[in-house]
Amino acid sequence: MFKELLNDIEEELMVLEEDLLKTINTKRMLIRKPLENMINAGGKRLRPGLVLTAARFGNYDFEKARPLALAVELLHMASMIHDDIVDDSPTRRGIPSIQSAIGKDAAVYAGDYVFCKVFEILANEPAYVMKETSKAMSQVCEGEIKQKEDFFNVDLTLKDYLYRIEKKTAVLFALSAKLGAFSSQAPCKTAKQLYTYGINAGMAFQMADDLSDFIADSEKLGKPKGSDLKSGVITLPVIYALKKNGENQYLRSILETRNIGEGEFSEIVRIIEIAGGFAYTRNMINRYVKKAQEALMALPDVPAREILNASAKIIIENVNKTI
Amino acid sequence: MFKELLNDIEEELMVLEEDLLKTINTKRMLIRKPLENMINAGGKRLRPGLVLTAARFGNYDFEKARPLALAVELLHMASMIHDDIVDDSPTRRGIPSIQSAIGKDAAVYAGDYVFCKVFEILANEPAYVMKETSKAMSQVCEGEIKQKEDFFNVDLTLKDYLYRIEKKTAVLFALSAKLGAFSSQAPCKTAKQLYTYGINAGMAFQMADDLSDFIADSEKLGKPKGSDLKSGVITLPVIYALKKNGENQYLRSILETRNIGEGEFSEIVRIIEIAGGFAYTRNMINRYVKKAQEALMALPDVPAREILNASAKIIIENVNKTI
Repeated sequence: MFKELLNDIEEELMVLEEDLLKTINTKRMLIRKPLENMINAGGKRLRPGLVLTAARFGNYDFEKARPLALAVELLHMASMIHDDIVDDSPTRRGIPSIQSAIGKDAAVYAGDYVFCKVFEILANEPAYVMKETSKAMSQVCEGEIKQKEDFFNVDLTLKDYLYRIEKKTAVLFALSAKLGAFSSQAPCKTAKQLYTYGINAGMAFQMADDLSDFIADSEKLGKPKGSDLKSGVITLPVIYALKKNGENQYLRSILETRNIGEGEFSEIVRIIEIAGGFAYTRNMINRYVKKAQEALMALPDVPAREILNASAKIIIENVNKTI
Repeated sequence: MFKELLNDIEEELMVLEEDLLKTINTKRMLIRKPLENMINAGGKRLRPGLVLTAARFGNYDFEKARPLALAVELLHMASMIHDDIVDDSPTRRGIPSIQSAIGKDAAVYAGDYVFCKVFEILANEPAYVMKETSKAMSQVCEGEIKQKEDFFNVDLTLKDYLYRIEKKTAVLFALSAKLGAFSSQAPCKTAKQLYTYGINAGMAFQMADDLSDFIADSEKLGKPKGSDLKSGVITLPVIYALKKNGENQYLRSILETRNIGEGEFSEIVRIIEIAGGFAYTRNMINRYVKKAQEALMALPDVPAREILNASAKIIIENVNKTI
């Protein structure tokens, strides 16, 4: 049953790949080709996958879930395009990022275009979808701005960090779960549990992503190691290392130069390792994955639940692989 | 009656100023202050003004027109913020543009944030509003990308130019008129005429704006003279001068350097003047203003019609003032 469902979802995600390409069929070749490349470079399609899985907790109808799955992936895509401008990311998914392929200026419009498409798709959906999506979008936007505000902020607290990743990442996972449940008229209580699952899985996912900036190899990352930190994004391992045993003045002084090259990066990794910042982060990831799995316990024991449970587990497995 | 109505609309627009400020009450100070400055620097509020005037052709209800007027102004604001990034504009409305105040990177998010707010407002409106707005937004986006694609394109045709300004500018004017009519349940035929008015007035407005880049003084413009052309935007006076009496190779060669300084700019103005490019543009503006006024003739003779007629006339008067 589990394998069968996994197969079904994978097939549906393949249909969605075509939908993605069809959606961006603009005549403006300046942006069309780079957007096609970005889609064809793959990506895990976690958010549409979550829509399609969550929808299994009600009267499943692919045609109803389909535009919602498409919309959340496009939203994610648009925000990645603009993020890469701000973070100056040279690559994404192992190919040049849109900003490096066509320049920052044109990339602004490429992201806007994808945002517009989300609007167009949602215009045909029930008002509920629009309301929930617009709320989530504003939060994603605030999270991204907070990240930019906090570039190289060595006084960042754990609370600041959790606030930021919840808005920037977890909210879109939670929205995906909620929209899936809505598409199949799943009971309200089920939708709430799925939302909680999404928030916690999203938090764990972002922490794992932040951790991978330090310890994964570049090829798997699809972008150079340390690129988040070099551009100024302070994440959990650094926050922990800064605060462990009182203020770490040495780490602080390196970060305050706002100029992190390869040498400084290796030194920072060493400091975090000694402070136990990576172990602490892995511990937090485990904790959030457990919270996500606990939210599932209140749901009926169906194959979709197994898939969500397994997906949460994968976050931890991936983290362990990179050690 | 005319003066009374004008007063009413002006008062409503003052309420809208507060609405604009309230909408951007984010805790993210990185973007809040610059957005407040942009709002407080003024602007003509043509689009919300058009919503409020068009709404007078039905059962007028300010509370119904109000969120729509707010949404079109925010849409305009978001697209200006991103445009200024792409065009590298140092100033807007006489103050530093957002991109020059907080940098291009943060300006990307500032524009996104305003877009998100539009989404949020429209989520509470009837589906029709969302559908029409999303269609318009995609067109605005395509128009802007087309403009970027055509930077320094000396083979640009009149048709290309008209396509671009219709999408980039006129569509949002037309949307404003249509949404105003919708908010007051004006008859379908009335809404269509108002839409036609909006398209033609918008075309004339953009042509006048393009013309002002060459001949208005910087103070009135709120930005340096020639800034459009210097950043590569080819507009009607140039297109005409390039084509007049066969290809103008000299003008072509200046533009093809893609490096327009003060000297080159003065030379181009001279060439356009001799070719009659400014006169031709003024003629085209007249023609579109007439089309806009003709669309009004099918509407009932109410004070709102007089205001729209006068607004169209102002476009020409402003052009004549700058000669």
